[in-house]
Amino acid sequence: MRSKLVARPSPFVAHNNFGGGFVSDQDRVALNSMRFASADSAGASRSNFFPGDAHGGKGGINVLEASMDQLNMTLPPWAIRAGARRDIYFDPSQATAAIVTCGGLCPGLNDVVQGLVNKLTDYGVPEGKILGIKYGFRGFYDAQVKPIVLSKRVVDGIQLQGGTILGTSRGGANIREIVKRIDMWGIDMLFVVGGNGGNAGANAINAMCRQHDVPCSVVGVPKSIDNDILLIDKCFGFDTAVEESQRALMAAKVEASSARKGIGLVKLMGRQSGFIAMQASMASGVVDACLIPEVNFKLDGDNGLLKYLDGVIKAKGHCVVCVAEGAGQDILEDGGQIGTDASGNPILKDIGAFLKDKFKAYFKDADIKYIDPSYMIRSVSTTTNDRIYCKILAHNAVHAAFAGFTGITVGLVNTHYVYLPIPVIIQAPRKVDPRGKAWNRLRAAIGQPSFQ
Amino acid sequence: MRSKLVARPSPFVAHNNFGGGFVSDQDRVALNSMRFASADSAGASRSNFFPGDAHGGKGGINVLEASMDQLNMTLPPWAIRAGARRDIYFDPSQATAAIVTCGGLCPGLNDVVQGLVNKLTDYGVPEGKILGIKYGFRGFYDAQVKPIVLSKRVVDGIQLQGGTILGTSRGGANIREIVKRIDMWGIDMLFVVGGNGGNAGANAINAMCRQHDVPCSVVGVPKSIDNDILLIDKCFGFDTAVEESQRALMAAKVEASSARKGIGLVKLMGRQSGFIAMQASMASGVVDACLIPEVNFKLDGDNGLLKYLDGVIKAKGHCVVCVAEGAGQDILEDGGQIGTDASGNPILKDIGAFLKDKFKAYFKDADIKYIDPSYMIRSVSTTTNDRIYCKILAHNAVHAAFAGFTGITVGLVNTHYVYLPIPVIIQAPRKVDPRGKAWNRLRAAIGQPSFQ
Amino acid sequence: MRSKLVARPSPFVAHNNFGGGFVSDQDRVALNSMRFASADSAGASRSNFFPGDAHGGKGGINVLEASMDQLNMTLPPWAIRAGARRDIYFDPSQATAAIVTCGGLCPGLNDVVQGLVNKLTDYGVPEGKILGIKYGFRGFYDAQVKPIVLSKRVVDGIQLQGGTILGTSRGGANIREIVKRIDMWGIDMLFVVGGNGGNAGANAINAMCRQHDVPCSVVGVPKSIDNDILLIDKCFGFDTAVEESQRALMAAKVEASSARKGIGLVKLMGRQSGFIAMQASMASGVVDACLIPEVNFKLDGDNGLLKYLDGVIKAKGHCVVCVAEGAGQDILEDGGQIGTDASGNPILKDIGAFLKDKFKAYFKDADIKYIDPSYMIRSVSTTTNDRIYCKILAHNAVHAAFAGFTGITVGLVNTHYVYLPIPVIIQAPRKVDPRGKAWNRLRAAIGQPSFQ
Amino acid sequence: MRSKLVARPSPFVAHNNFGGGFVSDQDRVALNSMRFASADSAGASRSNFFPGDAHGGKGGINVLEASMDQLNMTLPPWAIRAGARRDIYFDPSQATAAIVTCGGLCPGLNDVVQGLVNKLTDYGVPEGKILGIKYGFRGFYDAQVKPIVLSKRVVDGIQLQGGTILGTSRGGANIREIVKRIDMWGIDMLFVVGGNGGNAGANAINAMCRQHDVPCSVVGVPKSIDNDILLIDKCFGFDTAVEESQRALMAAKVEASSARKGIGLVKLMGRQSGFIAMQASMASGVVDACLIPEVNFKLDGDNGLLKYLDGVIKAKGHCVVCVAEGAGQDILEDGGQIGTDASGNPILKDIGAFLKDKFKAYFKDADIKYIDPSYMIRSVSTTTNDRIYCKILAHNAVHAAFAGFTGITVGLVNTHYVYLPIPVIIQAPRKVDPRGKAWNRLRAAIGQPSFQ
Repeated sequence: MRSKLVARPSPFVAHNNFGGGFVSDQDRVALNSMRFASADSAGASRSNFFPGDAHGGKGGINVLEASMDQLNMTLPPWAIRAGARRDIYFDPSQATAAIVTCGGLCPGLNDVVQGLVNKLTDYGVPEGKILGIKYGFRGFYDAQVKPIVLSKRVVDGIQLQGGTILGTSRGGANIREIVKRIDMWGIDMLFVVGGNGGNAGANAINAMCRQHDVPCSVVGVPKSIDNDILLIDKCFGFDTAVEESQRALMAAKVEASSARKGIGLVKLMGRQSGFIAMQASMASGVVDACLIPEVNFKLDGDNGLLKYLDGVIKAKGHCVVCVAEGAGQDILEDGGQIGTDASGNPILKDIGAFLKDKFKAYFKDADIKYIDPSYMIRSVSTTTNDRIYCKILAHNAVHAAFAGFTGITVGLVNTHYVYLPIPVIIQAPRKVDPRGKAWNRLRAAIGQPSFQ
Repeated sequence: MRSKLVARPSPFVAHNNFGGGFVSDQDRVALNSMRFASADSAGASRSNFFPGDAHGGKGGINVLEASMDQLNMTLPPWAIRAGARRDIYFDPSQATAAIVTCGGLCPGLNDVVQGLVNKLTDYGVPEGKILGIKYGFRGFYDAQVKPIVLSKRVVDGIQLQGGTILGTSRGGANIREIVKRIDMWGIDMLFVVGGNGGNAGANAINAMCRQHDVPCSVVGVPKSIDNDILLIDKCFGFDTAVEESQRALMAAKVEASSARKGIGLVKLMGRQSGFIAMQASMASGVVDACLIPEVNFKLDGDNGLLKYLDGVIKAKGHCVVCVAEGAGQDILEDGGQIGTDASGNPILKDIGAFLKDKFKAYFKDADIKYIDPSYMIRSVSTTTNDRIYCKILAHNAVHAAFAGFTGITVGLVNTHYVYLPIPVIIQAPRKVDPRGKAWNRLRAAIGQPSFQ
Repeated sequence: MRSKLVARPSPFVAHNNFGGGFVSDQDRVALNSMRFASADSAGASRSNFFPGDAHGGKGGINVLEASMDQLNMTLPPWAIRAGARRDIYFDPSQATAAIVTCGGLCPGLNDVVQGLVNKLTDYGVPEGKILGIKYGFRGFYDAQVKPIVLSKRVVDGIQLQGGTILGTSRGGANIREIVKRIDMWGIDMLFVVGGNGGNAGANAINAMCRQHDVPCSVVGVPKSIDNDILLIDKCFGFDTAVEESQRALMAAKVEASSARKGIGLVKLMGRQSGFIAMQASMASGVVDACLIPEVNFKLDGDNGLLKYLDGVIKAKGHCVVCVAEGAGQDILEDGGQIGTDASGNPILKDIGAFLKDKFKAYFKDADIKYIDPSYMIRSVSTTTNDRIYCKILAHNAVHAAFAGFTGITVGLVNTHYVYLPIPVIIQAPRKVDPRGKAWNRLRAAIGQPSFQ
Repeated sequence: MRSKLVARPSPFVAHNNFGGGFVSDQDRVALNSMRFASADSAGASRSNFFPGDAHGGKGGINVLEASMDQLNMTLPPWAIRAGARRDIYFDPSQATAAIVTCGGLCPGLNDVVQGLVNKLTDYGVPEGKILGIKYGFRGFYDAQVKPIVLSKRVVDGIQLQGGTILGTSRGGANIREIVKRIDMWGIDMLFVVGGNGGNAGANAINAMCRQHDVPCSVVGVPKSIDNDILLIDKCFGFDTAVEESQRALMAAKVEASSARKGIGLVKLMGRQSGFIAMQASMASGVVDACLIPEVNFKLDGDNGLLKYLDGVIKAKGHCVVCVAEGAGQDILEDGGQIGTDASGNPILKDIGAFLKDKFKAYFKDADIKYIDPSYMIRSVSTTTNDRIYCKILAHNAVHAAFAGFTGITVGLVNTHYVYLPIPVIIQAPRKVDPRGKAWNRLRAAIGQPSFQ
């Protein structure tokens, strides 16, 4: 996009960016920092690319249908380093920016919004020229909601409350209507804070902007409380979610152990990826079985979950199970119905309620306590770690926009901040590698069998 | 050391390590994942090695007296990947292990102790063969304290309390006496959880063991709440410390803003490295000036701290200053004395009290609140993030010992767990790079001038 | 019971009870400290006795079928002051004590158990003579569970964990079997920590002990997280529950306000009494409508809840509703069924799910988030306030037993600790007075109409 | 004051105060609810009035020089019940109100300010007519600070932050200047949130208003984090302070127990009254000795503190001491100087530092950790309990002003909200009764000797 724009020096050149200097467009961060000795090494077989293992492991570019060769072709070995550039391509004093938050709540949305507004203001974007789009993408064209004007004063302190002051919603990516407003309102840079859906929308917006020569820089800030975004070390809000999950797991433990034959069952977030359930279980030290979407399990039979829990209860009087919401979908397929709704449509039973019923049927005299803390987790404010992470992601998103990048997203790779093309990260959700170190470590720590 | 030991299969071979397989001794993790385009790139000039920038940046192998060439010679480009090996070199049923915690308190010590005991037990080390050395190194030979016996039951739940159940102390590294006990007591593996001092002790113990053919594997778990250990992504307990620091900074903000011309002054930990002060300030959003050991500052003059704070107070009525305990040592040198102690020795005024006095003298009618929360920070239990990190470090330390490694320490590099030779990490403390991204970002975020 | 026992001096006589002296059996605490000018005064009409109004008000001896005259006859105007007596009626060195916890979890159970064990030990009850009955009343006679031996060491630190180390269960008050064990095991004093059911059980045990000349002192510690015990200022665990409820209410607020037409719905504990919902709503400042069992409400019509919420949503874009689990039972009666269970029995829809469905039907495009945090609330450890309260209740229960009281319960009345006959407090559940100050204050604070 | 004003119906008459009705001026609350059998009863000897013992006991109208007869004459046996009256004496649509916060920070100041503003607005005081006086009393006449305008929007959410949005300061009660502004600005009602000093100021303001016929209603909201206000059950913020104190005590315990011969020393607030230290010690379960201003202690000798701690350390390896800032003033008198300040004036050593030095001298090889958490305690936001308490105090203060009361303060007595004449509560600070139940219970719980 830079070809259509004019370069000018960054306003931070005067003090050499607070003494820190500038990033070169040619600086690079390696996406992979692991060299396996052979395919026999743990984690090497399927995901011999990028299997970092802090935070539940980046391991698991485990797109089963994709061969490694294809992956090698799809994934670039280097990412562009993020940060302030010496040359910028928008005149801050003339620039108009817009921010939109999309999808479900995730701790850190307000931190990101605040970081974007603060850094835009630091660049010199004038008061009144930073717009907050309300309630997700549809806030661009819904006649009943108008964008709000954001300023340092408006975003002061919002990091201390959960949720998003912009509001959010799922869907609504009517690209044509959105680009029309971008053009009409003269938006020079659009920041999309969203998950795979939000990033796909950002990508489509960018494509249409390019197609119609709308000179808007579209930059994504990837948001997934499930931590299922490819390539990056971890998603913002994930640490906070794991931290907050502890309350539910500890409650389950207390309830279970205070009852005779008590079973504590906690359903955590994770539609396609079980990172939260895995890490929360690892941290808690109280979970006896952890069930995630990536790993099938049998309920019945000698190796099944029920028999295993029976043994745990016999040994210590109670047990605690942590299940990701997307786990066990194959089991639910035949028997997941609990009835029909008012319109006569079948309602799928969720895995938590399903397991609760199964436990009730199997353990006749057990005392089962089922906890679903999802809303209480995703609505909290960030831990310090996530707070800093969100700020820096936001700052780098603004640097990217001013540097004339578009169709990219910010991220953390091997502890460095980078820019990645949006299509690269949305090709598939990141998943827990069932043969990777992180899942293996949890199983080793709690002694969980394979349930097969 | 392996040459003197006999290899045998890991007890985890039976189930292929819970399906996760084993790590090869030839697996490698790159210490550096950044490629600078040129020496002009931000952070490239001095520390063009390993400048990862999450968690305050690994940047800052900023040993000023060392030229890059020397660094290049000293630092290996790859680390050995940590994890369970297929072959082990001690018979778990015959092995005796000892654990010692050294130096000041740091969140996570109990998590590490628990992780060590649990994993040793998982390997099959019998009840009664895991010793906890009391109160640091001197617990080896102090006639008045005896080692305690550790077991899964003993360490159950200790992660929920701060401190260390083993007790700790500074110094006491009487190597000869220690190795004598290692030999007498038949200790096969010694785990040293300590900072630079503790690791230096571990290194010396290892050297003397090798010299005298004492077949003990010595493995370090690097502990530094200041986060000043070279090469690794971050130290355990650091995140927790930054999180807990927020209470003091928020208290300073509340006190300062509730008074007319209020000044909140918080002293945080950081003898040689200002990582905690930097990250805590970055997260809080309430700090107006952050002072760290790596960056000198002037008090007086037009560009000095006092004049700057005067401006801040004029603008918003109050200000908050965060100072690392090791900051401003050059200023203290001439004038740091407050008198003499009972023995007639001069006592150095600490930088917190010194600044408080300076503020009092300069801002006649200001209301100054000075907070030193150090003990309340280092004694808390871990956040979830640190909890998991400690566990995995501990597990990998046990894997290392059984694999026959000695004189090494565990760590996290580019999000992968690795083993590093102890001498490599103790050659110098890691420091905040005054020209690196992390310090630069903080200054940019709070608009802090150079005070020069 | 004292007539059958021998008085002896308290072991605390030596130091005059740590300088604090002893309580006289004739010391009295007034149950009522309010004098209404006339029946027109707020709160005077129905409950002109004991309408204390901190902690949600004691007001509400609102037994609708009981006339005031009857109440005046039933309720004594004075309670016996609690505390250590100079004369005791059991020889501590020969005494055996038993502790049982009954009913649902409530914050503070472990604090009470700890307080009982510590004070019994202070009196001189020997190690091994304090029994913990497992899993409620049935632990007395269930062949599969045996009592555990409690000591200061066993209860050390248990106050930091939620739940009850003794385990608990509902029901099981097989009085004959229990008294048989009391007699066989030579239990001199039995402490029953339970709600209305537990106290009724204690009362029956006491009656049968008296009938059969079993010389056991039965002392209750009233437990009700719902705070529905008559006469006493508040129940232990209630403050903690209200505190912890804030998380759910704040989550509901964040979820609701981050969505377009968001409705946050939180169901809190309170089967017959809405104290938790009322106080949690009062504290939170985010609740728009609070529904409790004591006050009927209409859903439909111009004055109904739905219309009211519609107005709130129109005004500020979202709303938050807090409902006690026992609210709206009259509404549920005709239409509460969601189907039949495996055995063909109708299942009653709970009020939370019922309201959620009603909201969905009425507010077509609203985004409804329903939160049921009950298990996460009742399983937490106590706030400091409750911690102290539990300790002192427990200490006074032990003083009561040694002083030869039986069939009584400890409590707090007008800020003084007292002993009350069990029958007095279990004649009816305490309820929120719909015309009392506490409910009135909430309605005034949030502007809630009557929904009639 | 009512004689000069005109009565009119309350705006809440329309809906009978949300169905709750109104309080009669003749409703009364008994100040005392305890009847001692004789002067031998525990707590009866000196303070046979009002010895309520929740929250550390109201006991301790321990004015040593006052005989009981005098007390009986000074203290009225009944207080006026607080609450909304049917008749009010100011026209809300014409009324102007002012709020001032005085003295040191205390949790709950913002809750009170918010409660006052909300209730004033509910009465109908127009936007723009509620003034917030900045930085305490001197904000009335300091030319450099102007009052701010308070509204529901301004105070929205302020309860979530500590401190006071109005700012505060000590002193400044220039009565003449203040009354001049009250008159000039037409302030009809002044709310003074302050401690003994603030209430004395309010009293003087009221007296001068009466003298000069300035028709302003002056109502106090008593604030004392030390909980040293006479007669009332407890002061707002006190519970929160005790709760927050636990962090420091637990840190001291962790530090002490992790060191060999560790001594944890925590100084808590309490200039004349040791309620915080006493209750915090009671709750924590980790304190070995608690020192308060009301009870002298010897350091040396066989019964002294040092010898006692020596025994504790010998028994369990470490100890924890909690000292109120006002404790041991008699010991400090001869030897409290640490030198002279710049002007040559002697500086009194504080008791914390003094004890730390004494411990160092006596326990040569002990590891002493001294923690002073005061600013971190007083600046936090309120627990739920205090939050509700603050709101209701504020609401009742507004009801009092509209009802034409002046020179009175709101309070909680025997769990009922009351109005008390300011002179009654400021005649002396409330103190811990050294022979009362609360102090006795703590000593019994931790086995503390008399140190005499």
